[in-house]
Amino acid sequence: MAADLSIEGFLVGHHSDPEGLTGCTAILAPAGAVASVDIRGGAPGTLETALLSPYASVTELHGILLTGGSAPGLAAAAGLTRWLQEHGRGYQTPFARIPLVSAAVIYDLGLGSPTACPSAADAYGAAAAAGTRVEEGSVGAGTGATVGKLFNFQGMMKGGVGVASVMTGGGVTVTALVVCNALGDVLDEQGGILAGARRDGGFVGCTKALLEMPSAPVFGAIESTTLAVVMTDAALDKLQCGVVSRMAHDGFARAIDPVHTPRDGDCVFTLTTGTVPGNVFQVGVAAAEAVAAAIRRAVRTAEGAGGVPSVSDLAAVREAQASSEEGAATANGTVGL
Amino acid sequence: MAADLSIEGFLVGHHSDPEGLTGCTAILAPAGAVASVDIRGGAPGTLETALLSPYASVTELHGILLTGGSAPGLAAAAGLTRWLQEHGRGYQTPFARIPLVSAAVIYDLGLGSPTACPSAADAYGAAAAAGTRVEEGSVGAGTGATVGKLFNFQGMMKGGVGVASVMTGGGVTVTALVVCNALGDVLDEQGGILAGARRDGGFVGCTKALLEMPSAPVFGAIESTTLAVVMTDAALDKLQCGVVSRMAHDGFARAIDPVHTPRDGDCVFTLTTGTVPGNVFQVGVAAAEAVAAAIRRAVRTAEGAGGVPSVSDLAAVREAQASSEEGAATANGTVGL
Repeated sequence: MAADLSIEGFLVGHHSDPEGLTGCTAILAPAGAVASVDIRGGAPGTLETALLSPYASVTELHGILLTGGSAPGLAAAAGLTRWLQEHGRGYQTPFARIPLVSAAVIYDLGLGSPTACPSAADAYGAAAAAGTRVEEGSVGAGTGATVGKLFNFQGMMKGGVGVASVMTGGGVTVTALVVCNALGDVLDEQGGILAGARRDGGFVGCTKALLEMPSAPVFGAIESTTLAVVMTDAALDKLQCGVVSRMAHDGFARAIDPVHTPRDGDCVFTLTTGTVPGNVFQVGVAAAEAVAAAIRRAVRTAEGAGGVPSVSDLAAVREAQASSEEGAATANGTVGL
Repeated sequence: MAADLSIEGFLVGHHSDPEGLTGCTAILAPAGAVASVDIRGGAPGTLETALLSPYASVTELHGILLTGGSAPGLAAAAGLTRWLQEHGRGYQTPFARIPLVSAAVIYDLGLGSPTACPSAADAYGAAAAAGTRVEEGSVGAGTGATVGKLFNFQGMMKGGVGVASVMTGGGVTVTALVVCNALGDVLDEQGGILAGARRDGGFVGCTKALLEMPSAPVFGAIESTTLAVVMTDAALDKLQCGVVSRMAHDGFARAIDPVHTPRDGDCVFTLTTGTVPGNVFQVGVAAAEAVAAAIRRAVRTAEGAGGVPSVSDLAAVREAQASSEEGAATANGTVGL
């Protein structure tokens, strides 16, 4: 599956390692794009986010790398920086043009090789491959992503990359790209579990199961994280982009349960070209909508890997069971149940 | 309707002004209770929240006042402070015992008298009336609360006070008290609209309607706000209480849409007695659950006032319509639809 970014000026490219089950995703911003970040998880792994504080003087950002490999994966951002340098992108300083690149990681060592980690060359390749149509599912930074990890990597399901766009009545476009590697379950539009922690062939409900435990499960602090990049064309300043990043986290709360836990490094970046009149109220609400939709697409488009099933794998199993039951029922001369 | 706080040491009392349609709610914390706050709305009205920063040295808090009357309502907190002083509660300083009181307001001037505002005497009365069983609905700080205000106070519904508790497998109790005065719609457990902006007898869906507008509606910046106080007995320090306050905002996102907008002063306080072994992970997840449930109770228990209908008013209208249709159908000799 793939989706169009539906917004002028942004380009996205993936590098995927289907054997090590890791990868990275490069987002290239058009010149002058204004950026912000809001980090609400307890276990973030990020690069150059202090730069995005409302108190930091620079407002522009030239690229974002989302990557697997946990904290060591941040080093891959150098490859995106090099690609931007070679293409004359960056902030003009007295002596050179300096590309400003933020990055954030997911912990994907529980699937595939625990030593696989995207390199600077991989990030360079992702930048070189960037376009306006983006592959979704088990690709790029979502290659090794998983969800539903309450039972210490047992019974988890496949996460991935999702993209969704919302347009406002005023003609502003808001596109969210998400890498979903959440500890919690991913919920559908009615609050049912779409993908999450499974036991005995069914969903356990991470929140319910967690609350029933005598104490919280013991594992390390950086196993999970959902990352989002909100791209828009609305004329917003850096501070307003920060409000959008804050509001976009409500999309996490609606589509993932639990989320923003001490084990999730949940992080939202917002980037705008600032070319269409818009307002922070509508763009923030649209961002929450787009992020929730992109999270659901991430698991709906994911493919199973390393023995971890995807939403589509479970649907295929259910269909096979249904048709074999139907076959059995037909053989008995009764209507299938 | 009323609910038990289900947790040792906390007391809650209301003062309600059913003519001016405003009021206040006092939360009395037991000695030594540790406190935090997380403010995520764009239009907060608060008192003594800097004190609750992780960087501020004091960890304890003795009372919280939630109040109507918008910013001028904060002055009512003096009444709660006086009651605490008279009862020997406070932080021991070299010369006197100083009660530490935080407060937060809702804007309830759009219902009832626009000049009605809770006084210090009202807050004193709320403290004096405090107990472990708490009235819910259109009482206290929820007396003049409303929800679904996308159309500038047209078509809104009644908000109020709600209380809900969650218990963990380890025996920690988490109780949320909420005053729901949101701009957005309140959603039920399946994401359907329970109470919200209405037009032509039906819900419009605030988020959908907002996104279709050519620009955001123009009104002042402080009309809406949902306030929550999370009370627990979990052994958490001040910083961990801050994490719980942060995570509790996910309950807002699940039960209110849109929320955390530039027009909402959304704010969560967390208070703990610290008497039961617990962990921030479970308590944070429980807080989000309890807050979402308390928000739904707030509108389900509210009573219509000042021409603004409640959830129960609409249910009564539907029942009356159904029985009159049934009557008409019976008169026609056909089965009721």
